[in-house]
Amino acid sequence: MKERAIGVFDSGLGGLTVVRELLAALPGEDIVYFGDTGRVPYGSRSREALEEYARQDQRFLLSQDVKLVIAACGTVSSVVPYVGEELPVPFLGVVSPAADAAVQATRNGKIGVIGTIATIASKAYGRELLKRSPGLTISERACPLFVPLVEAGWFGESDEVALLTARRYLEGLKEEGVDTLILGCTHYPILTGVIRRVMGEEPVLINTGKTAAAAAGALLREKGLLNPRAAGGRCRYFVSDRTEDFARLAGVFLSRPVDEVQRVDITAY
Amino acid sequence: MKERAIGVFDSGLGGLTVVRELLAALPGEDIVYFGDTGRVPYGSRSREALEEYARQDQRFLLSQDVKLVIAACGTVSSVVPYVGEELPVPFLGVVSPAADAAVQATRNGKIGVIGTIATIASKAYGRELLKRSPGLTISERACPLFVPLVEAGWFGESDEVALLTARRYLEGLKEEGVDTLILGCTHYPILTGVIRRVMGEEPVLINTGKTAAAAAGALLREKGLLNPRAAGGRCRYFVSDRTEDFARLAGVFLSRPVDEVQRVDITAY
Repeated sequence: MKERAIGVFDSGLGGLTVVRELLAALPGEDIVYFGDTGRVPYGSRSREALEEYARQDQRFLLSQDVKLVIAACGTVSSVVPYVGEELPVPFLGVVSPAADAAVQATRNGKIGVIGTIATIASKAYGRELLKRSPGLTISERACPLFVPLVEAGWFGESDEVALLTARRYLEGLKEEGVDTLILGCTHYPILTGVIRRVMGEEPVLINTGKTAAAAAGALLREKGLLNPRAAGGRCRYFVSDRTEDFARLAGVFLSRPVDEVQRVDITAY
Repeated sequence: MKERAIGVFDSGLGGLTVVRELLAALPGEDIVYFGDTGRVPYGSRSREALEEYARQDQRFLLSQDVKLVIAACGTVSSVVPYVGEELPVPFLGVVSPAADAAVQATRNGKIGVIGTIATIASKAYGRELLKRSPGLTISERACPLFVPLVEAGWFGESDEVALLTARRYLEGLKEEGVDTLILGCTHYPILTGVIRRVMGEEPVLINTGKTAAAAAGALLREKGLLNPRAAGGRCRYFVSDRTEDFARLAGVFLSRPVDEVQRVDITAY
């Protein structure tokens, strides 16, 4: 069991920021990644569609004999986290670990959350935060242009379109004085430079990839499922559309080359 | 046969700009519209995925007994037009009618084309234009942020993000002196005000919805398939994700309310 891989899925490439953090935190673990590139983005889909997509993604990972499933997708983790509870193996979304970290980080009790339309509409972050600390003030903002900006490569901290977009989305949060901001979508850490220029140096930015990877380590340790190897873990990548596009774009998120990518017909799962 | 509906499909809502023009040009025709809102956008998908999606979309329309199929999607019309040739009924994409109109409109022989990444990579517009007039100078530009801008509602002609984005995409075309610009994606007519502010009043803008609707009328007339009614056509809408979201957003494209929307499982076709 310990030797089995960790399964990670996302709507597309964003979840690779979770893989990057897993590789850094748990270098002995094998990883199986599924990116639903044929149906990306999830952030504007309905609950019904998300349930079906998440179930298929998880069934595919189970077919790869994984020991843990991570929904590295802010939208799935927020809107349909209960689909993960159907699994016969442990499951982890990105919301709970990020909420834990935000509650630890805030000093003034004002926490901001940014994410896709579906994530923000679900109010999942707000619920998880208030469960941990009922006195918090939570401000949530949907930032639907952030994902296409990242995918267009317009994410440099001097990019005027990115800066103008970030100002429109974030200035209200800055005025409200949030001291902690949850980047509730796996694409958003790529925009850290831009977000810093708008929000200033003070707010703590919670990278949900980092907090999910740390929580995965803790969960495996607790369940006695950590791979005894200290290094040498292998990553296998699967996508639902062309593998070439994935390999080319994956570098932005992963900061290392992608060796093995295969295509799967996800609607068959 | 004449009483049968015209079938129109698109990746999502953009194709409604074609429906709007059909309603104006052929008010007696019934229309069946399918929007693949569960898998939108098509503009970043591979050829293989597009073939499969277009085939399923067309099979659904055939199941509704249509007399003509229109691919109201710039990406399908550009990348996999041959899928339409498999049909037992007449088929029309948006590329040929727009190329005809552009060749008619240009005086200096410099034509610009804007579209999604997949449309521009296919070079379909350039091929169709040069087939009609080999001496033309064609400049093509992918504008991947335009669709998310429209869907975010940031399309007003004074919207700074939209203007800055349009300047980045279009200034090269303006400098090259194109006198005719094909809006090669059904979302783009919504950005006409913004595009005009960057390009000036002179270039002729080719609205592919308008040219496709006119071509549909001509084709039906030629084949003796025009509905003899002069008015009173009925529109039925089908989508692959939540019907509520569709009904709400459709107004932007259609400028009239949507009465009847049904959800279909498109992967079953």
